[in-house]
Parts: sequence; C-alpha cells; structure tokens
Amino acid sequence: METNFDCIPCFIRQTIEAVRFATTDENIHELVLREVLYAASKMDMKKSPPVMGQYIHRLIRKYSGSPDPYKKVKDRFNQYALELYPALKEIIENSPDKFDTAARMAIAGNIIDFGVNNKIDSTIIKKNIEKSLSEKLFGSVTHLQEAVNAAETILYIGDNTGEIVFDRLLIGQLPKGKVIYAVRGSPVINDATIADAVYTAMTDMVRVIDNGSDAPGCIIEECSSAFRQYFFDADLIIAKGQGNFETLSDVNKNIFFLLKAKCPVIARHIGCELGNAVIMGKQS
Amino acid sequence: METNFDCIPCFIRQTIEAVRFATTDENIHELVLREVLYAASKMDMKKSPPVMGQYIHRLIRKYSGSPDPYKKVKDRFNQYALELYPALKEIIENSPDKFDTAARMAIAGNIIDFGVNNKIDSTIIKKNIEKSLSEKLFGSVTHLQEAVNAAETILYIGDNTGEIVFDRLLIGQLPKGKVIYAVRGSPVINDATIADAVYTAMTDMVRVIDNGSDAPGCIIEECSSAFRQYFFDADLIIAKGQGNFETLSDVNKNIFFLLKAKCPVIARHIGCELGNAVIMGKQS
Repeated sequence: METNFDCIPCFIRQTIEAVRFATTDENIHELVLREVLYAASKMDMKKSPPVMGQYIHRLIRKYSGSPDPYKKVKDRFNQYALELYPALKEIIENSPDKFDTAARMAIAGNIIDFGVNNKIDSTIIKKNIEKSLSEKLFGSVTHLQEAVNAAETILYIGDNTGEIVFDRLLIGQLPKGKVIYAVRGSPVINDATIADAVYTAMTDMVRVIDNGSDAPGCIIEECSSAFRQYFFDADLIIAKGQGNFETLSDVNKNIFFLLKAKCPVIARHIGCELGNAVIMGKQS
Repeated sequence: METNFDCIPCFIRQTIEAVRFATTDENIHELVLREVLYAASKMDMKKSPPVMGQYIHRLIRKYSGSPDPYKKVKDRFNQYALELYPALKEIIENSPDKFDTAARMAIAGNIIDFGVNNKIDSTIIKKNIEKSLSEKLFGSVTHLQEAVNAAETILYIGDNTGEIVFDRLLIGQLPKGKVIYAVRGSPVINDATIADAVYTAMTDMVRVIDNGSDAPGCIIEECSSAFRQYFFDADLIIAKGQGNFETLSDVNKNIFFLLKAKCPVIARHIGCELGNAVIMGKQS
C-alpha cells in the first residue's frame, strides 16, 4: 500500500507524540521533528507508510539515546494481557464456535497499538474485547478456517506486545505443528520482538522467528533472507495489524489480514468503516 | 504567540485540505505539500502560526493559479449572514442587555473559519448562535464595555467573511464616530477584504481600511504604514478571531480579543476550554 497524502500530517503528529514519549528534552523534540519534516518533503510516496515509521523511530532511538523507549509499556501490556489470558481462554473454551471466538480475540488484541494511540489503557482494552465478541466482522472467519485447513504450513506474523498474548488464543485453535510465529527483528514502537515472545510464553507454544527488521511492519525486501524463505515457503500467512497490512497488501502471497481498522486511510483502502474488526483474505 | 510543535501537524493537515479545496490537480497537491513540509523543517518557531499560514496560502494561490480560491464560499457565507442579520438584530433589540447580546453574536460569527474547518455549514452556524446567547463566556463583556466607554478611537479588526456581518451587530452598539473597521489587504483563506466590507454594507456603517497584508492575521511589522498608524493611534483595539490573537497577543497595545477557541494550542495558551467563547482584554 502506497503512502497517502493524508498519512503525512499523521506521521508528524505521531513523531511529536513518540519523541515526547521517549524524552522530555525539547531540543530533541525539535531536532527530530525538523528531520522528519525534511524527510517527508523528499519521501517516496510509492513506499508504504511503515517505511517512514521506521525512519521516525530510528531517529527517536538515536537522538533519545534509548534503544527501546517503549520497553516499560511493552512489559506492562504483556503482563496485563497475561493476567487476562486465563479468563479469555475460558470464554473461548465455553463458546459454541471456538475458532470464531479466538479469531475475534486475536483481532481485539490489535487495539494495543502505540503507533496509533499512546493513550491505550485497560479500560479501552476491556471494552474492545467485549465489543469484539458480538460485533459484525468485516470479512469471514469461515474463509480463514478453510484456508487454515487447506494449509500445511502457516506463518503467523505478529504485531504488538500485549497483543501477542491474544495471538496465543488463536494459535491454540490452529493445527499443532503447522504454525511458525514471527516477530520484529528489533524494537520499534511497542511491537513484539523475540524477548516478548519468550516473556509471554509464545515460544512454549510454537516456533518463533524474527523478521530481521526494525520496521513497524514487514518490508519484505528488507527482512532477513531466513525470514523471507519462511514467508515464501508458507502455504498461508496470517498477518496481524495495520503495519503488516500496509507493507504486505501488495505482496503476491496467500495472506489473511486480521486487524482493527484504526486509521481512516486504511479503512478507506480496505473499504470498511473506521473501527471495524477486519479479517480479510487475499489470494496470491 | 510563538508556534507550538503541535501546530505543525495541523499546518500540514490544513495544507492538504486547502490545496484540495483550491484545485483537483493531485500534482499541485503534492507540490504544495512537499514545499510546505520543507519550509516547516526550516521554520522560525518564534514567529506566530499565521506566518506559516500566509506562506501556505501564497503557495496554494500561486500553484493553483487562483488569486482567491475561497471566493465562492466567501460570497455564500456573506450572503447567508446577511439573510440572518435582520432576525439577529431583532434579538439584540429585544434583549435586556443589548451590548452583551451583540458581543455574543460577534463572537458566535467567528465560527465561520475555513482555516480551522472547511466543513462549516448553516446548521453549525445556527447551533453556535443559539449556544452563544446563553453560554458562559471566558472573560467579561463589562470590561469590554468599560474599555469602549473610555476610548475615543476604536480600531475593530475583523476576521472572516460571513463573520463580518456579525461584527456589524456589535458595531451597532458602539459609539458612532469612534470606530474604524479593518480587513485584510488581500484574499487569504475566507478572511474578509474590502470587497466583503462593501458587499456586506460594513462600509455604510463605519470607515473601513485594509491592513495591506495577505496574512491570516495581523503581522504588525508587515502591515502597511497607514494601518500601523491607525493601530498605534487607536485607544482601543477590538480584534476578532484566532489569527488576530496569534499575531497580536504579544503586541504592546490595549486590545480586546473576541474569538471562539477552536484550536487546543490556543485554548491552552489562553487558559480556556476548547470551544469556549472568549472575550479577553489585554492592557498595553
């Protein structure tokens, strides 16, 4: 997905929010803001929005001197989601269609996205889980289930910390032995990395790999060759969240995107309403 | 008032909205957007936000080839306000405190601001007028009345088209012969110029001058020397709207600002709530 003009003011707003989140030093706020404005003035709009996201967060890490500014909130949301996990698992086990409920939970977890909103809290997450159990989905869980049944190998590409625990709920409903879970190669925003997969016990469920990149998405040509091999060898990709959608929507693969549409440009691109829970298949 | 970091994403959003309003040519959208991003990366943040507004709208006029992209909406809102005028005047004439009601009307008219929101329509305007009659003002009408009584010469600096008709309601309650009304020197956004003062019959009520500038505010050092003389000679300035507030809040004069606080940065600067009707005096 290309960058839309409407993404640009959002990049700038996100830059200010993120650099303030990383440091209280106003000189660094200004330095990063000016560099991002300059870069945006020259940017290649054919590239997907996470290319600029990667640039912004590299700058913020560089100037703030913090290799992982979101470490504390990442830990907090992993911990919080782990506390919710037993109750959510019970809801799934007691539901008439476990796969459907688990898919809804996995999508609900995608609300924990500090790239879009760094005011996320437990109240928003709980309301979102409740809503997800009954709301009309944009797309078909049945189609995902059929694609899962037809696949021998599934690469499940995660998105955020906290959310990774919700992914465990859906992975629990996928055939054992078929699934590999992928995380980012290194910290960016609150996206999950190998450390988070270990912390949330995802590594006890399935094999976990990283994509070798610090983009808030999967810019496939920038990912490690090992990741690319898993990606292209898999019969089915399940990709979580907006960043993975933005970077993979034009890649020629059999992919299901599961996400909350939190941005008007993406909602317009998908053809859904802002706020919709999306489960959308794309054939290779 | 200096430019805040939070003004920058808003400049970019306004640029996109305004250039789309001026032309459907996407090449021009991109050209203007990139130039504004570049200029913002180098901008002097000590200057007030309308300095960037002036730059943005100069670019849009230059590249779109339209010297007045808002001409149609300016005419429409002047016409609409003129249709409302007799009924609003009657409300004032029948109210227990005509000056208070007229001041509220003048502030209500400041909602017609295409710099902040180009989706303004008659429903929003009508609701805003109704609200203005009873809402708690941020500031004191009595203080304005006292300042008016003490002044021999009053320079009333207008803001937008449409709104200029609401200004006539307040000017009708000011002492005859004391008031000069000022407009922008040339078209910028939907701000009122001499043509609008003629069209709305402001010129039949009081002497009207222009400030010689195309900024969406009064960048005093850029205004004509004639305007500056009226400005500094006046005992009292009544300045309408956010652009005049942003450019004049640090100028050493006896000024009353009348505006709707439509932007969070300005509301924070003033110390009021977003959406408040403000009538705020500032001593020289």
